[in-house]
Amino acid sequence: MENKQFTLEDQSLLEELLLHRRDVRGNNFLSDPISDEIIDKLLQAASMAPSVGFSQPWEFVLIRDAEIKQQVADNFAAENKKAANAFSDDKQQRYQQLKLEGILEAPLNIAVFYKPSVKPVLGQNSMLEAGEYSVVCAIQNIWLMARAMNIGLGWVSILNPEEIKQILNAPTENKLVAYLCLGYVKTFYDRPELEKKRWEKRKTIRSVVYSEGYP
Amino acid sequence: MENKQFTLEDQSLLEELLLHRRDVRGNNFLSDPISDEIIDKLLQAASMAPSVGFSQPWEFVLIRDAEIKQQVADNFAAENKKAANAFSDDKQQRYQQLKLEGILEAPLNIAVFYKPSVKPVLGQNSMLEAGEYSVVCAIQNIWLMARAMNIGLGWVSILNPEEIKQILNAPTENKLVAYLCLGYVKTFYDRPELEKKRWEKRKTIRSVVYSEGYP
Repeated sequence: MENKQFTLEDQSLLEELLLHRRDVRGNNFLSDPISDEIIDKLLQAASMAPSVGFSQPWEFVLIRDAEIKQQVADNFAAENKKAANAFSDDKQQRYQQLKLEGILEAPLNIAVFYKPSVKPVLGQNSMLEAGEYSVVCAIQNIWLMARAMNIGLGWVSILNPEEIKQILNAPTENKLVAYLCLGYVKTFYDRPELEKKRWEKRKTIRSVVYSEGYP
Repeated sequence: MENKQFTLEDQSLLEELLLHRRDVRGNNFLSDPISDEIIDKLLQAASMAPSVGFSQPWEFVLIRDAEIKQQVADNFAAENKKAANAFSDDKQQRYQQLKLEGILEAPLNIAVFYKPSVKPVLGQNSMLEAGEYSVVCAIQNIWLMARAMNIGLGWVSILNPEEIKQILNAPTENKLVAYLCLGYVKTFYDRPELEKKRWEKRKTIRSVVYSEGYP
Protein backbone atom coordinates (compact mmCIF):
# COMPACT_ATOMS: atom_id res chain seq x y z
CA MET A 1 0.00 0.00 0.00
CA GLU A 2 2.98 2.36 0.38
CA ASN A 3 3.95 4.45 -2.59
CA LYS A 4 0.77 4.17 -4.60
CA GLN A 5 1.39 6.02 -7.87
CA PHE A 6 -1.44 7.96 -9.45
CA THR A 7 -1.67 8.39 -13.22
CA LEU A 8 -2.27 11.33 -15.56
CA GLU A 9 -5.81 10.03 -15.94
CA ASP A 10 -6.31 10.15 -12.18
CA GLN A 11 -5.08 13.75 -12.13
CA SER A 12 -7.57 14.70 -14.85
CA LEU A 13 -10.40 13.13 -12.90
CA LEU A 14 -9.48 15.12 -9.79
CA GLU A 15 -9.33 18.29 -11.90
CA GLU A 16 -12.82 17.54 -13.20
CA LEU A 17 -14.09 17.05 -9.67
CA LEU A 18 -12.60 20.30 -8.40
CA LEU A 19 -13.98 22.11 -11.43
CA HIS A 20 -17.52 20.74 -11.07
CA ARG A 21 -17.87 21.22 -7.30
CA ARG A 22 -20.50 23.88 -6.57
CA ASP A 23 -22.08 25.60 -3.58
CA VAL A 24 -25.71 24.48 -3.84
CA ARG A 25 -28.65 26.43 -2.45
CA GLY A 26 -32.33 25.78 -1.78
CA ASN A 27 -33.48 26.53 -5.31
CA ASN A 28 -31.57 23.48 -6.48
CA PHE A 29 -32.03 20.75 -3.88
CA LEU A 30 -34.30 17.74 -4.38
CA SER A 31 -36.05 16.26 -1.36
CA ASP A 32 -34.87 12.64 -2.01
CA PRO A 33 -33.27 11.36 1.20
CA ILE A 34 -29.57 10.55 1.46
CA SER A 35 -29.05 6.96 2.60
CA ASP A 36 -27.08 6.00 5.71
CA GLU A 37 -24.56 4.23 3.51
CA ILE A 38 -23.90 7.43 1.57
CA ILE A 39 -23.65 9.47 4.78
CA ASP A 40 -21.11 6.97 6.04
CA LYS A 41 -19.01 7.50 2.91
CA LEU A 42 -19.10 11.26 3.48
CA LEU A 43 -17.96 10.86 7.08
CA GLN A 44 -15.24 8.41 6.04
CA ALA A 45 -13.96 11.06 3.63
CA ALA A 46 -13.94 13.60 6.45
CA SER A 47 -12.01 11.26 8.72
CA MET A 48 -9.21 10.96 6.14
CA ALA A 49 -8.50 14.70 6.29
CA PRO A 50 -5.18 15.95 7.61
CA SER A 51 -5.26 17.22 11.19
CA VAL A 52 -2.70 19.01 13.29
CA GLY A 53 -0.86 16.47 15.45
CA PHE A 54 -3.33 13.81 14.20
CA SER A 55 -5.77 15.38 16.68
CA GLN A 56 -8.87 14.76 14.48
CA PRO A 57 -10.64 17.60 16.32
CA TRP A 58 -13.94 17.36 14.38
CA GLU A 59 -17.48 16.58 15.50
CA PHE A 60 -20.52 16.29 13.25
CA VAL A 61 -24.19 16.74 14.10
CA LEU A 62 -26.52 15.24 11.49
CA ILE A 63 -29.84 17.06 11.29
CA ARG A 64 -32.93 15.83 9.45
CA ASP A 65 -35.58 16.96 11.96
CA ALA A 66 -37.89 19.60 10.45
CA GLU A 67 -38.33 21.50 13.71
CA ILE A 68 -34.60 21.87 14.35
CA LYS A 69 -34.04 22.91 10.74
CA GLN A 70 -36.76 25.53 11.14
CA GLN A 71 -35.00 27.01 14.18
CA VAL A 72 -31.76 27.21 12.22
CA ALA A 73 -33.59 28.74 9.23
CA ASP A 74 -35.11 31.38 11.53
CA ASN A 75 -31.63 32.21 12.77
CA PHE A 76 -30.44 32.54 9.19
CA ALA A 77 -33.33 34.90 8.38
CA ALA A 78 -32.45 37.22 11.29
CA GLU A 79 -28.71 37.24 10.49
CA ASN A 80 -29.33 37.67 6.78
CA LYS A 81 -31.46 40.76 7.38
CA LYS A 82 -28.56 42.33 9.25
CA ALA A 83 -26.08 41.17 6.60
CA ALA A 84 -27.99 42.84 3.77
CA ASN A 85 -27.43 46.24 5.41
CA ALA A 86 -23.69 46.00 4.72
CA PHE A 87 -24.34 46.60 1.02
CA SER A 88 -25.14 49.87 -0.72
CA ASP A 89 -28.63 50.45 -2.18
CA ASP A 90 -28.26 48.84 -5.59
CA LYS A 91 -26.16 45.94 -4.38
CA GLN A 92 -28.51 45.47 -1.42
CA GLN A 93 -31.40 44.97 -3.81
CA ARG A 94 -29.43 42.36 -5.75
CA TYR A 95 -28.39 40.75 -2.43
CA GLN A 96 -32.01 40.33 -1.38
CA GLN A 97 -32.84 38.53 -4.62
CA LEU A 98 -30.22 35.84 -4.00
CA LYS A 99 -31.17 32.50 -2.46
CA LEU A 100 -28.22 31.90 -0.14
CA GLU A 101 -29.04 28.68 1.70
CA GLY A 102 -31.04 25.46 1.52
CA ILE A 103 -31.58 24.62 5.19
CA LEU A 104 -35.19 23.51 4.81
CA GLU A 105 -34.96 22.21 1.23
CA ALA A 106 -31.90 19.97 1.78
CA PRO A 107 -32.87 16.60 3.29
CA LEU A 108 -29.67 16.53 5.34
CA ASN A 109 -27.94 19.29 7.30
CA ILE A 110 -24.60 18.77 9.06
CA ALA A 111 -23.34 21.13 11.74
CA VAL A 112 -19.56 20.78 11.92
CA PHE A 113 -17.73 21.63 15.13
CA TYR A 114 -14.17 22.06 16.28
CA LYS A 115 -13.64 20.27 19.58
CA PRO A 116 -10.55 21.64 21.37
CA SER A 117 -8.30 19.02 22.91
CA VAL A 118 -7.90 18.92 26.68
CA LYS A 119 -4.23 17.91 26.35
CA PRO A 120 -1.48 19.65 24.34
CA VAL A 121 -1.62 18.98 20.59
CA LEU A 122 1.57 18.50 18.59
CA GLY A 123 1.92 21.43 16.18
CA GLN A 124 -0.82 23.55 17.73
CA ASN A 125 1.11 26.12 19.71
CA SER A 126 2.38 29.02 17.58
CA MET A 127 -0.71 28.99 15.35
CA LEU A 128 -3.66 27.94 17.46
CA GLU A 129 -6.06 28.13 14.51
CA ALA A 130 -4.47 24.93 13.15
CA GLY A 131 -7.17 22.99 15.03
CA GLU A 132 -10.07 24.73 13.29
CA TYR A 133 -8.22 24.56 10.00
CA SER A 134 -8.08 20.77 10.32
CA VAL A 135 -11.87 20.75 10.56
CA VAL A 136 -12.08 22.83 7.37
CA CYS A 137 -9.90 20.27 5.55
CA ALA A 138 -12.40 17.61 6.62
CA ILE A 139 -15.25 19.73 5.25
CA GLN A 140 -13.52 20.12 1.90
CA ASN A 141 -13.08 16.32 1.78
CA ILE A 142 -16.83 15.89 2.43
CA TRP A 143 -17.61 18.44 -0.28
CA LEU A 144 -15.52 16.66 -2.90
CA MET A 145 -16.79 13.21 -1.95
CA ALA A 146 -20.37 14.52 -2.11
CA ARG A 147 -19.73 15.88 -5.61
CA ALA A 148 -18.20 12.55 -6.67
CA MET A 149 -21.50 10.94 -5.57
CA ASN A 150 -23.44 13.64 -7.48
CA ILE A 151 -24.71 15.15 -4.24
CA GLY A 152 -24.83 18.91 -3.77
CA LEU A 153 -23.54 20.74 -0.72
CA GLY A 154 -24.00 24.32 0.42
CA TRP A 155 -22.02 25.97 3.23
CA VAL A 156 -24.13 28.40 5.26
CA SER A 157 -22.08 31.00 7.14
CA ILE A 158 -24.84 33.57 7.77
CA LEU A 159 -25.71 32.16 11.19
CA ASN A 160 -25.06 33.25 14.74
CA PRO A 161 -22.71 30.48 15.92
CA GLU A 162 -23.58 30.83 19.61
CA GLU A 163 -27.30 30.57 18.92
CA ILE A 164 -26.80 27.51 16.70
CA LYS A 165 -24.80 25.92 19.50
CA GLN A 166 -27.72 26.52 21.86
CA ILE A 167 -30.20 24.97 19.41
CA LEU A 168 -27.99 21.87 19.16
CA ASN A 169 -27.08 21.76 22.85
CA ALA A 170 -23.38 21.87 21.92
CA PRO A 171 -20.72 21.89 24.66
CA THR A 172 -19.49 25.40 25.53
CA GLU A 173 -15.94 24.69 24.41
CA ASN A 174 -16.97 23.53 20.93
CA LYS A 175 -16.76 26.01 18.08
CA LEU A 176 -19.16 25.93 15.14
CA VAL A 177 -17.00 25.90 12.02
CA ALA A 178 -19.64 25.31 9.37
CA TYR A 179 -23.28 24.50 8.77
CA LEU A 180 -23.70 22.34 5.68
CA CYS A 181 -26.81 21.54 3.61
CA LEU A 182 -26.72 18.38 1.50
CA GLY A 183 -29.00 16.78 -1.03
CA TYR A 184 -29.37 15.53 -4.57
CA VAL A 185 -29.79 18.39 -7.01
CA LYS A 186 -31.79 19.50 -10.01
CA THR A 187 -28.63 20.74 -11.63
CA PHE A 188 -25.01 21.59 -10.92
CA TYR A 189 -24.31 24.98 -12.47
CA ASP A 190 -21.39 25.19 -14.87
CA ARG A 191 -19.86 28.06 -12.87
CA PRO A 192 -20.25 29.46 -9.34
CA GLU A 193 -23.59 31.28 -9.08
CA LEU A 194 -21.95 34.51 -7.88
CA GLU A 195 -19.65 34.42 -10.90
CA LYS A 196 -22.53 33.78 -13.33
CA LYS A 197 -24.51 36.63 -11.79
CA ARG A 198 -21.46 38.91 -11.90
CA TRP A 199 -21.51 39.53 -8.17
CA GLU A 200 -17.71 39.04 -8.16
CA LYS A 201 -15.19 38.45 -10.92
CA ARG A 202 -12.86 35.48 -11.03
CA LYS A 203 -9.32 36.49 -10.08
CA THR A 204 -6.43 35.53 -12.31
CA ILE A 205 -3.84 33.28 -10.70
CA ARG A 206 -1.13 35.75 -11.63
CA SER A 207 -2.80 38.41 -9.45
CA VAL A 208 -2.53 36.33 -6.27
CA VAL A 209 0.95 34.78 -6.60
CA TYR A 210 4.27 36.25 -5.48
CA SER A 211 7.79 34.93 -5.73
CA GLU A 212 10.18 34.82 -2.74
CA GLY A 213 8.15 37.48 -0.89
CA TYR A 214 5.96 40.55 -1.41
CA PRO A 215 7.53 43.42 -3.35
CA MET B 1 -20.84 21.23 -18.96
CA GLU B 2 -23.77 21.48 -16.51
CA ASN B 3 -24.78 18.37 -14.65
CA LYS B 4 -21.68 16.29 -15.20
CA GLN B 5 -22.34 12.89 -13.58
CA PHE B 6 -19.50 11.11 -11.83
CA THR B 7 -19.36 7.30 -11.70
CA LEU B 8 -18.75 4.73 -8.97
CA GLU B 9 -15.27 4.36 -10.42
CA ASP B 10 -14.65 8.08 -10.01
CA GLN B 11 -15.78 7.87 -6.39
CA SER B 12 -13.36 5.03 -5.72
CA LEU B 13 -10.52 7.00 -7.23
CA LEU B 14 -11.27 9.98 -4.97
CA GLU B 15 -11.40 7.63 -1.97
CA GLU B 16 -7.97 6.29 -2.94
CA LEU B 17 -6.62 9.83 -3.20
CA LEU B 18 -7.97 10.88 0.20
CA LEU B 19 -6.63 7.67 1.72
CA HIS B 20 -3.11 8.04 0.28
CA ARG B 21 -2.64 11.74 1.04
CA ARG B 22 0.09 12.19 3.66
CA ASP B 23 1.80 14.99 5.54
CA VAL B 24 5.39 14.71 4.30
CA ARG B 25 8.42 15.85 6.27
CA GLY B 26 12.09 16.48 5.55
CA ASN B 27 13.16 12.85 5.99
CA ASN B 28 11.13 12.00 2.91
CA PHE B 29 11.61 14.79 0.39
CA LEU B 30 13.77 14.46 -2.73
CA SER B 31 15.55 17.55 -4.02
CA ASP B 32 14.26 17.21 -7.63
CA PRO B 33 12.72 20.55 -8.61
CA ILE B 34 9.01 20.98 -9.29
CA SER B 35 8.43 22.43 -12.77
CA ASP B 36 6.51 25.66 -13.41
CA GLU B 37 3.89 23.66 -15.27
CA ILE B 38 3.26 21.50 -12.21
CA ILE B 39 3.16 24.54 -9.93
CA ASP B 40 0.59 26.07 -12.24
CA LYS B 41 -1.59 22.96 -11.89
CA LEU B 42 -1.37 23.24 -8.10
CA LEU B 43 -2.41 26.89 -8.17
CA GLN B 44 -5.23 26.13 -10.63
CA ALA B 45 -6.50 23.55 -8.14
CA ALA B 46 -6.37 26.17 -5.38
CA SER B 47 -8.30 28.65 -7.47
CA MET B 48 -11.18 26.19 -7.89
CA ALA B 49 -11.78 26.07 -4.14
CA PRO B 50 -15.02 27.37 -2.67
CA SER B 51 -14.79 30.84 -1.13
CA VAL B 52 -17.24 32.87 0.90
CA GLY B 53 -19.08 35.27 -1.41
CA PHE B 54 -16.73 34.17 -4.23
CA SER B 55 -14.15 36.43 -2.55
CA GLN B 56 -11.15 34.22 -3.44
CA PRO B 57 -9.24 35.76 -0.52
CA TRP B 58 -6.03 33.77 -1.02
CA GLU B 59 -2.48 34.84 -1.80
CA PHE B 60 0.49 32.54 -2.37
CA VAL B 61 4.19 33.25 -1.97
CA LEU B 62 6.39 30.71 -3.73
CA ILE B 63 9.76 30.27 -2.05
CA ARG B 64 12.75 28.45 -3.51
CA ASP B 65 15.49 30.78 -2.27
CA ALA B 66 17.83 29.00 0.18
CA GLU B 67 18.44 32.09 2.29
CA ILE B 68 14.75 32.80 2.83
CA LYS B 69 14.11 29.14 3.61
CA GLN B 70 16.92 29.27 6.18
CA GLN B 71 15.29 32.23 7.93
CA VAL B 72 12.00 30.32 8.09
CA ALA B 73 13.77 27.19 9.31
CA ASP B 74 15.44 29.24 12.08
CA ASN B 75 12.03 30.51 13.11
CA PHE B 76 10.74 26.93 13.20
CA ALA B 77 13.67 25.87 15.41
CA ALA B 78 12.94 28.60 17.96
CA GLU B 79 9.19 27.91 18.04
CA ASN B 80 9.71 24.16 18.15
CA LYS B 81 11.94 24.46 21.20
CA LYS B 82 9.14 26.27 23.02
CA ALA B 83 6.56 23.79 21.73
CA ALA B 84 8.44 20.80 23.13
CA ASN B 85 8.01 22.18 26.65
CA ALA B 86 4.25 21.59 26.48
CA PHE B 87 4.83 17.85 26.77
CA SER B 88 5.67 15.84 29.84
CA ASP B 89 9.12 14.25 30.22
CA ASP B 90 8.60 10.98 28.36
CA LYS B 91 6.45 12.46 25.63
CA GLN B 92 8.88 15.38 25.32
CA GLN B 93 11.67 12.97 24.53
CA ARG B 94 9.56 11.30 21.85
CA TYR B 95 8.59 14.75 20.53
CA GLN B 96 12.22 15.73 20.09
CA GLN B 97 12.89 12.63 18.02
CA LEU B 98 10.21 13.53 15.48
CA LYS B 99 11.11 15.29 12.24
CA LEU B 100 8.23 17.75 11.91
CA GLU B 101 8.99 19.81 8.81
CA GLY B 102 10.89 19.83 5.53
CA ILE B 103 11.53 23.54 4.97
CA LEU B 104 15.09 23.14 3.71
CA GLU B 105 14.71 19.69 2.15
CA ALA B 106 11.62 20.49 0.06
CA PRO B 107 12.53 22.23 -3.21
CA LEU B 108 9.40 24.39 -3.03
CA ASN B 109 7.81 26.18 -0.07
CA ILE B 110 4.51 28.05 -0.36
CA ALA B 111 3.39 30.57 2.25
CA VAL B 112 -0.38 30.89 2.03
CA PHE B 113 -2.09 34.07 3.18
CA TYR B 114 -5.61 35.27 3.82
CA LYS B 115 -6.09 38.73 2.30
CA PRO B 116 -9.08 40.49 3.92
CA SER B 117 -11.35 42.31 1.48
CA VAL B 118 -11.64 46.08 1.69
CA LYS B 119 -15.34 45.93 0.78
CA PRO B 120 -18.10 43.86 2.43
CA VAL B 121 -18.09 40.17 1.47
CA LEU B 122 -21.35 38.31 0.93
CA GLY B 123 -21.69 35.68 3.66
CA GLN B 124 -18.85 36.98 5.81
CA ASN B 125 -20.65 38.81 8.59
CA SER B 126 -21.90 36.49 11.37
CA MET B 127 -18.88 34.19 11.06
CA LEU B 128 -15.89 36.29 10.08
CA GLU B 129 -13.58 33.27 9.97
CA ALA B 130 -15.30 32.21 6.73
CA GLY B 131 -12.59 34.16 4.86
CA GLU B 132 -9.72 32.21 6.38
CA TYR B 133 -11.66 29.00 6.01
CA SER B 134 -11.91 29.62 2.25
CA VAL B 135 -8.11 29.75 2.14
CA VAL B 136 -7.93 26.40 3.95
CA CYS B 137 -10.24 24.85 1.32
CA ALA B 138 -7.78 26.06 -1.33
CA ILE B 139 -4.92 24.44 0.60
CA GLN B 140 -6.74 21.12 0.76
CA ASN B 141 -7.29 21.32 -3.01
CA ILE B 142 -3.54 21.89 -3.50
CA TRP B 143 -2.78 18.96 -1.19
CA LEU B 144 -4.99 16.54 -3.11
CA MET B 145 -3.78 17.74 -6.51
CA ALA B 146 -0.18 17.37 -5.32
CA ARG B 147 -0.89 13.80 -4.22
CA ALA B 148 -2.54 13.03 -7.58
CA MET B 149 0.75 14.17 -9.19
CA ASN B 150 2.70 12.00 -6.70
CA ILE B 151 4.12 15.07 -4.99
CA GLY B 152 4.35 15.25 -1.22
CA LEU B 153 3.19 18.18 0.88
CA GLY B 154 3.79 19.02 4.53
CA TRP B 155 1.95 21.75 6.45
CA VAL B 156 4.19 23.52 8.97
CA SER B 157 2.27 25.23 11.76
CA ILE B 158 5.11 25.59 14.28
CA LEU B 159 6.06 29.07 13.12
CA ASN B 160 5.54 32.56 14.50
CA PRO B 161 3.15 34.02 11.92
CA GLU B 162 4.14 37.65 12.51
CA GLU B 163 7.83 36.87 12.09
CA ILE B 164 7.17 34.91 8.88
CA LYS B 165 5.21 37.91 7.58
CA GLN B 166 8.23 40.10 8.27
CA ILE B 167 10.59 37.73 6.47
CA LEU B 168 8.30 37.78 3.42
CA ASN B 169 7.49 41.50 3.63
CA ALA B 170 3.77 40.66 3.77
CA PRO B 171 1.19 43.46 4.10
CA THR B 172 0.10 44.08 7.70
CA GLU B 173 -3.51 43.13 7.02
CA ASN B 174 -2.62 39.71 5.56
CA LYS B 175 -2.85 36.68 7.81
CA LEU B 176 -0.54 33.70 7.43
CA VAL B 177 -2.79 30.65 7.22
CA ALA B 178 -0.25 27.99 6.34
CA TYR B 179 3.34 27.35 5.38
CA LEU B 180 3.61 24.43 2.97
CA CYS B 181 6.62 22.35 1.92
CA LEU B 182 6.38 20.49 -1.40
CA GLY B 183 8.53 18.03 -3.26
CA TYR B 184 8.77 14.58 -4.79
CA VAL B 185 9.19 11.91 -2.15
CA LYS B 186 11.14 8.78 -1.32
CA THR B 187 7.95 7.15 -0.12
CA PHE B 188 4.39 7.91 0.91
CA TYR B 189 3.74 6.10 4.17
CA ASP B 190 0.75 3.77 4.29
CA ARG B 191 -0.63 5.58 7.34
CA PRO B 192 -0.09 8.98 9.02
CA GLU B 193 3.29 9.00 10.75
CA LEU B 194 1.79 9.99 14.11
CA GLU B 195 -0.60 7.05 13.86
CA LYS B 196 2.18 4.61 12.94
CA LYS B 197 4.29 5.86 15.82
CA ARG B 198 1.32 5.64 18.19
CA TRP B 199 1.49 9.31 19.10
CA GLU B 200 -2.32 9.47 18.73
CA LYS B 201 -4.95 6.85 18.00
CA ARG B 202 -7.37 7.03 15.10
CA LYS B 203 -10.84 8.00 16.29
CA THR B 204 -13.84 5.95 15.23
CA ILE B 205 -16.45 7.80 13.20
CA ARG B 206 -19.11 6.76 15.68
CA SER B 207 -17.29 8.65 18.44
CA VAL B 208 -17.53 12.01 16.63
CA VAL B 209 -21.05 11.92 15.17
CA TYR B 210 -24.30 13.01 16.82
CA SER B 211 -27.86 12.96 15.59
CA GLU B 212 -30.15 16.02 15.79
CA GLY B 213 -28.01 17.59 18.53
CA TYR B 214 -25.75 16.76 21.46
CA PRO B 215 -27.29 14.64 24.22
